This record gives sequence, C-alpha cells and structure tokens, in this order.
Amino acid sequence: MTNAAKPVVALTLGDPAGIGPELIAKLLSRPDVCEEANVVVVGDIWVWNAGQQTAGVAVQTHPVATLAEVRHRPHATRPAFVPVTSIDAGKVHCGRVAAECGASVLQVLNLCMDAAKAAQVDAICFAPLNKHAMKLGGLRHEDELHHFAEYLGVQDYFCEFNTLGRLWTSRVSSHIPLKYAARALSQERIVAAARLIHQSLRDSGFPDPRVAVAAFNPHAGDGGMCGREEIDIIAPAVKTLQDAGVPVEGPFPADTVFLKARDGHYQAVVTMYHDQGQIAIKLLGFSRGVTVQGGLPIPITTPAHGTAFDIAGRGVADVNATHNAFRIAARMGASQLRARQGAALAGE
Amino acid sequence: MTNAAKPVVALTLGDPAGIGPELIAKLLSRPDVCEEANVVVVGDIWVWNAGQQTAGVAVQTHPVATLAEVRHRPHATRPAFVPVTSIDAGKVHCGRVAAECGASVLQVLNLCMDAAKAAQVDAICFAPLNKHAMKLGGLRHEDELHHFAEYLGVQDYFCEFNTLGRLWTSRVSSHIPLKYAARALSQERIVAAARLIHQSLRDSGFPDPRVAVAAFNPHAGDGGMCGREEIDIIAPAVKTLQDAGVPVEGPFPADTVFLKARDGHYQAVVTMYHDQGQIAIKLLGFSRGVTVQGGLPIPITTPAHGTAFDIAGRGVADVNATHNAFRIAARMGASQLRARQGAALAGE
Repeated sequence: MTNAAKPVVALTLGDPAGIGPELIAKLLSRPDVCEEANVVVVGDIWVWNAGQQTAGVAVQTHPVATLAEVRHRPHATRPAFVPVTSIDAGKVHCGRVAAECGASVLQVLNLCMDAAKAAQVDAICFAPLNKHAMKLGGLRHEDELHHFAEYLGVQDYFCEFNTLGRLWTSRVSSHIPLKYAARALSQERIVAAARLIHQSLRDSGFPDPRVAVAAFNPHAGDGGMCGREEIDIIAPAVKTLQDAGVPVEGPFPADTVFLKARDGHYQAVVTMYHDQGQIAIKLLGFSRGVTVQGGLPIPITTPAHGTAFDIAGRGVADVNATHNAFRIAARMGASQLRARQGAALAGE
Repeated sequence: MTNAAKPVVALTLGDPAGIGPELIAKLLSRPDVCEEANVVVVGDIWVWNAGQQTAGVAVQTHPVATLAEVRHRPHATRPAFVPVTSIDAGKVHCGRVAAECGASVLQVLNLCMDAAKAAQVDAICFAPLNKHAMKLGGLRHEDELHHFAEYLGVQDYFCEFNTLGRLWTSRVSSHIPLKYAARALSQERIVAAARLIHQSLRDSGFPDPRVAVAAFNPHAGDGGMCGREEIDIIAPAVKTLQDAGVPVEGPFPADTVFLKARDGHYQAVVTMYHDQGQIAIKLLGFSRGVTVQGGLPIPITTPAHGTAFDIAGRGVADVNATHNAFRIAARMGASQLRARQGAALAGE
C-alpha cells in the first residue's frame, strides 16, 4: 500500500495530566501501527516526550510543520509529528483536573477537526480527556460529542456508539431524565440510529453486520399489557428498516437482547435509553472497549476508559483499548478515504 | 440434628410436561439433600415415577398420607412422599402447554401453602411451572407470586428476588410500562424493599449482608441535571434506612452498581424498575440462578429457568439451579422454624 492510499489518522495525547500521552507512546511503539494508517501525532512536544518517558519507550517520529503535509509525506513507516503549543509544563500536575489541561485538549481537537474539514485527515483517535477539565477550559456543551457535532456543522442524527469487540451499541435517547425517555422515542430516531450503526459497522470492517433493536418496556410490552411503545413506535420503525433492506430485527426484550448479541447473533444493539445499554456493556467489560462518535462527517474514536488520574505517570496504563480505538479509526478512515476518492473520480 | 429440628421443605414437581419431575428426581438422588432438611415431595405418583425414569435414578422415599405427618416422622435420611391425584397421564404431552398441567401445578402448590399456614411446612421449593398453562388452568393473577400473596393473606410489601449465588436483586416496580416507573417510586417502597432483601439474606445464611440501592436516572441524575428522583426520593430513603441501622448505600448509577455487587462489595441491589435489574442479572448468568418469593409468611423458592419444554423427557436437564433453590429454601426454612420455636417458647 502506498502512503497516499493509507488513511491519515490523527492521534491526540488527551489530557496531559492523565494517562493519554503514555498510551499514545505505548501505541506507537507497536510495530504494526504504521502499516494500517498514515499516522500523525498532534500535541505539545514536551507532553509527548513526557509520555514516552512514562511509557519507557522512544518513538521515532517524522516532524512536519502542519497537518496539510501529512498525506503526501514520503515516510510511511514512522508516525508524523505536528507540534503545537497548547500548555505550559508548569500548569500540569499529574493526576489533577485543571482548566488549562481542558483548554489544551480543546485546542488540539479543534485543530484536528479543521484539518478534517480540509480533507487533510481521514479519522481522529483521541486519548482520554476529562470532561470537567474541559468545561473549566471552555467546553460549552454537555460533552465532547456535542462540541464535535457543532464544530463540524452536523445537522442530522448523531450518536455515541459504545463498542466492545464485535458488539456495538447506540441509543435513541441519552442524558435525559428517565421519565422523559418515552417521549424521546420516535420512529425517525430509531430508523436513523439503526441505519447509522449499520453503516458505521460496515465502514469499520464488518462486511455483513446484523442489528438488533431493544424494546422499551418490560417483556417488550407483553403484547401491549405492559406499555405500547413497541407496538406504536419500535415495531413500525423495524418494519421500515426491513422494507429498506437493512438487516434489522426486534424489538427484543432488553434483558435478553444482549445475550443474543454477546453470543454473536447481532453485532449491534440499538437501545432506547441510556442505562439500558450502559448496564449491559459495562458488565460485558466496556472499560476495555471503544467509544465511536457516530454520525459525524469524519470518524472520531477514543478508548472507553477515562484519564485514570489515579495511575497517571506510573507507566502501568493498559494500551489495548487505545489500540482498538486506533484500529477502528484506521478502518473507518480508510472507508472515508475510499468514499472521497470515489466521489472525486465520479466528479472528474 | 434430630428430625424435629430440621425444617420441613416441601418440593413440588412443577409442570408435569416440563423438566420439573426430572429435576426433583435428580436433586433427591444427591446424598446430602436430606441432611439439610426434612424433605417431602408432593405430587402424583405416576409423575414422580416418570421423572425418576427420565433422570435415570431411583429414589427411596417414605410414603406418608398427609403433610401433617412429615415433621415428626421417624425416618430422617430419606424424603417423605405425599401422593396427590392432580392429573391423568393421558392429559400430559411432554413439552406441551396444557390447561390440565397448569391446574395440577396450582392444586399442588395450594396444598403446600395450606400446610404452611398450619405450620406443617417451613419452606416450599417448586420445580418450574409454565405461566401460560397456569392461566389456562385457573391462575387469576399476573404471576404465581401474586397468587401466593393473596392465598397467604399478605398485606405488606412483597417482591420477587432474583438471586445468583452471592448477589440478590429486588425491584421497586415490576411489570408496568416504563413511562410509569417514575411515579411508582416512593420512599416507603424503597425502604420496604431494602429491609426485606436485607432480612431475607440474613435468613438465608448471609451473616452480614450489605445492600446497594440503584439510581433511577442516567449518571444517578447528575446532581439534578438529569432527573430529580435521586434527590427527592431515593437518597432520603437511603438516609432513613441508614438511620435505622440497616447497612444500605446509594443511590449508585445503574451502570456501575452491578459491577460493585459482582465484585462482592454488596450482596443485594435494590433496583428501581424491571429491566434495570433483569438486564444485569441475565448477563451475569441468571438462568443458573434462583428466584425467591420475598415478603411471604413462608419462604418459597424456585430455579430461575423455566420448564425447558424443548429438552423435556430427555434426561439432560441441569439440576444445579434447583439444588441452589432447595438450599435457599432449607436455610430460610430453618430460620423460619427457629423463629417459630422462639415465639412458642416466649409464649409459654
């Protein structure tokens, strides 16, 4: 594969007071990483050096001045490095929340999104950030996903996917009081959520993903005895999807749908409210999983775990979730690149 | 232990078309069962014989005419057998739902509850029944628990516990539409549920059980940003319990409380709605677990799995959940018996 054919995947170091810099250093010390993508690290040089020191590794990088240069650089076998100046070393105290750290994360992510909008980057994988620090540092939204969506001008349905190997989940409603979850349901949102996760799974390398839709009420409403949302909203949405050829089934009772998915019958579960999916995926080991920001114009992924302030700076952080987040970004970035090249070809 | 000091545990064969008779035969072929309790099987002789045949075992029993005779019978080392006539062999087709099977189950359970009311039996452990067959056969309630409660004249809070080894769950609301779950919450119900599961755990042999209370909203309401039930209802209920010396903590976010319980920090989780607990406990392997009918004047337990019509009559049913259900019945029955003897002594 030539360098130009590889997707450009931007990696960010996350909150400098957490385990992020260490994780990216550990990730890039793995020899196969640069085979899957044209990798570029974006961050402060001193943070990157500190991360390598904590990780006990030395990563050879290829310094470039801007993200615009990454796609066509000659060196395919080592990561590029784009230096930024986002934070002073004196402001970072390992394992502590700080507004400056949050602002630094925001600055670097925005830079990557600017490059993505300019088609210089095909996917972003960011190391763990701290929401509280980001709010102190200027994040105006409830979470980073809403910031990304606004920054990238998203108008349609978007949703965080929680993924764990071959099981992905999405949700139709999220951070709202549970008593309002019923009124947040709609056929349109369920159809959009199922279509989006199905397409995202394909983009990330599942050739033939199957999607299960969870019910809302106990025992899937028990034929209407125990709630009517299945009859009035969810089943018609499933029918619409099936009629359109999307491989979707349901609604299934919430307490059995995850058993089916765990056993490999489905690769995605569309859930109806926050805890329905979160209870399941956390029990299945989601701290080892990956969060995929679905519905954005470019793929953005991150390990599901947080900044792990309690072990920051100790060199003991586990890189596997970050590696998985990188792999998903690389595969989705490759799909993104193919689509872009296809569109360019068609437009010629 | 003398026979009189052992709790009398009545075992029923469950739906004769399912795996119940086979399970009870397998259970009673285990040598240690009669050490824990004064066991009595209640059922049709032909069903019992068929169960032994399917299981490939021959169990020596001690025939007695009525449940009244069981407590003071001389033979401690083998199960008693009280024959009933509840169903003709011609009406039973292995693996099929039938009104006659449901009526048979109801008749036998009522007989056991009559004996319990007369203090002849200290606990009941029933083999799997089929709700649909029971409704066809005369069950007027939504489930067997509501039938038991009415039959036994229960006025106070009662609740099904789903148990899996050292993790028990109860719920504050059950088979209602999820959109009504918020209004089903009350401090009184949470306090009653926590007290009941705490006492039931003690009765079943946990010397010092700790109870976790789940939150209702995503992220436990996030300080009121995402719902107020935690602030207005759940936290005050936990405070009331703590003030009364009950070892209860919470409310904990629903997506982490089961991790804490799984890891042994709590032996019980009081859940706020049906699927909150069911999603978790089914993922943890509840089909191997035990259902305990909590809040009745006598302990009643049953394996969590169903009649397994697909494997009925084949001899391959797994007896472990039934054995666990029996053990819990025996321990709770022993507590029941001690309490009764204590009360009698105090009354002398």
